Amino acid sequence: MKRPVAESGGVPLTFEMQRRVEFADTDLAGVVHFTRFFQYMEEAEHAFLRSRGLSVVMRWHGQQLGWPRVAAECEYFRPAFFEDVLTLRLTLTKVGRKSLTYTTEFYRGEELLARGQITTCCCIMLPDGRMSPIELPEELRQRLLAP
Amino acid sequence: MKRPVAESGGVPLTFEMQRRVEFADTDLAGVVHFTRFFQYMEEAEHAFLRSRGLSVVMRWHGQQLGWPRVAAECEYFRPAFFEDVLTLRLTLTKVGRKSLTYTTEFYRGEELLARGQITTCCCIMLPDGRMSPIELPEELRQRLLAP
Amino acid sequence: MKRPVAESGGVPLTFEMQRRVEFADTDLAGVVHFTRFFQYMEEAEHAFLRSRGLSVVMRWHGQQLGWPRVAAECEYFRPAFFEDVLTLRLTLTKVGRKSLTYTTEFYRGEELLARGQITTCCCIMLPDGRMSPIELPEELRQRLLAP
Amino acid sequence: MKRPVAESGGVPLTFEMQRRVEFADTDLAGVVHFTRFFQYMEEAEHAFLRSRGLSVVMRWHGQQLGWPRVAAECEYFRPAFFEDVLTLRLTLTKVGRKSLTYTTEFYRGEELLARGQITTCCCIMLPDGRMSPIELPEELRQRLLAP
Repeated sequence: MKRPVAESGGVPLTFEMQRRVEFADTDLAGVVHFTRFFQYMEEAEHAFLRSRGLSVVMRWHGQQLGWPRVAAECEYFRPAFFEDVLTLRLTLTKVGRKSLTYTTEFYRGEELLARGQITTCCCIMLPDGRMSPIELPEELRQRLLAP
Repeated sequence: MKRPVAESGGVPLTFEMQRRVEFADTDLAGVVHFTRFFQYMEEAEHAFLRSRGLSVVMRWHGQQLGWPRVAAECEYFRPAFFEDVLTLRLTLTKVGRKSLTYTTEFYRGEELLARGQITTCCCIMLPDGRMSPIELPEELRQRLLAP
Repeated sequence: MKRPVAESGGVPLTFEMQRRVEFADTDLAGVVHFTRFFQYMEEAEHAFLRSRGLSVVMRWHGQQLGWPRVAAECEYFRPAFFEDVLTLRLTLTKVGRKSLTYTTEFYRGEELLARGQITTCCCIMLPDGRMSPIELPEELRQRLLAP
Repeated sequence: MKRPVAESGGVPLTFEMQRRVEFADTDLAGVVHFTRFFQYMEEAEHAFLRSRGLSVVMRWHGQQLGWPRVAAECEYFRPAFFEDVLTLRLTLTKVGRKSLTYTTEFYRGEELLARGQITTCCCIMLPDGRMSPIELPEELRQRLLAP
């Protein structure tokens, strides 16, 4: 996975939130289903955007922006259980010309349970439903990286 | 991602199934939510195991086997839409001493929409809920690789 | 729950499909999570519409139709388990002026596991995202009730 | 639906929590998928139990208790949207000999979006995976109804 490079005044951009494991997140093996870690990552990404005054559903110059995923991955070290309160530590690891990469670590207390990554591309939604990649709008970039 | 190495009489082991996109798989962007591709991969993995007379929920020498995920990843090339009938082409790309790696390609007709990979570890479920990795039982290995 | 009244030449309209329980449908109690029965009902409803040459995502006189849910309910008699192949027997129990009611029974072999009902309202989607109820278009009604 | 009858010193037992709508809760109609309201109800139920020092996963006299659902229903009045912060107002509407009924109202500000109900039965989990209904343990009843 990529090392942190996104910086805001020299400090890598991180964001932390808590997420309690809900019953519907578990499977018959008694642990959190592996797909849920991807949903948790998305929740952290969207909470990070809100913390910067942004939303994943936003308009720009009268056009709807979208953030389709280019790639997603997760490594699993230890299982998570029902009612665990997880700490999700998100780092904006890469700010590309048209894409953003987020790395998220999942902790239960000091224990690292999993580490995942999502790369997402800035697009405008065309009227016919297709999406077309664009360069990150400057205002968006500034809000993302503001100290 | 890994290249196919699992072979059964010289032929890489592949398995194909159809999966229709359901309404609950979509999100407000009008496409299949990116987490669902991981669920689809798991459905293909389990269907593959059934096609070999196996189940992901199985006992071995009186003990419950489990298959926790070690890693999962997916690359997304094109969106999938409601009611698309996707072809999932699964290949058993690696048979390790204790782990299996599956690569799955998602097609709509001839169009490759996404490619993902899951690595899963053979474990026995301990009475206290923990899991302990074991070498793939020989009978299991034979069933997986039978021509 | 309502008794069947929708008829097509005197015969209540029914539709049957099989649905295998997937791993992601289960929870830590080892059974299908109760919310999934509602998703299964929706899958049966949409398969029924397809069997009639319709789709829940359809246009009518250039406008997008939508089917928001007015009410949903389910009674649970017995649990369903991983890899069970369930038979979903859907009946169109009521065709109202603006709404449709579907009742679905879930069987494992001869065993009735659950019975649920969804009432859904025919709407046009307004440009601002709201939905406005309309009378069932006559062509739609005919396709639904065709013998 | 049932009127509130559960009382604790004459006051119906209610519990309130906030729940933000996540992206994965939405569908292609741009609203929260109707099945998610059932998941939200379960989250409120489990948060209520925690507020009473209980958990839906608990042991009693060395046996595992379970709470299979007997019935669930929901009426939908208005759609909920991405990033809405919903208020879930849960009332313990009925305490039966072996069952509990919870009614949950969903508000966005003052607006009532939906009202649902879950009836759940107190069971012990048998070694073979089946569940057997039991009378609510007295200690549990007291904790639930404590002022």
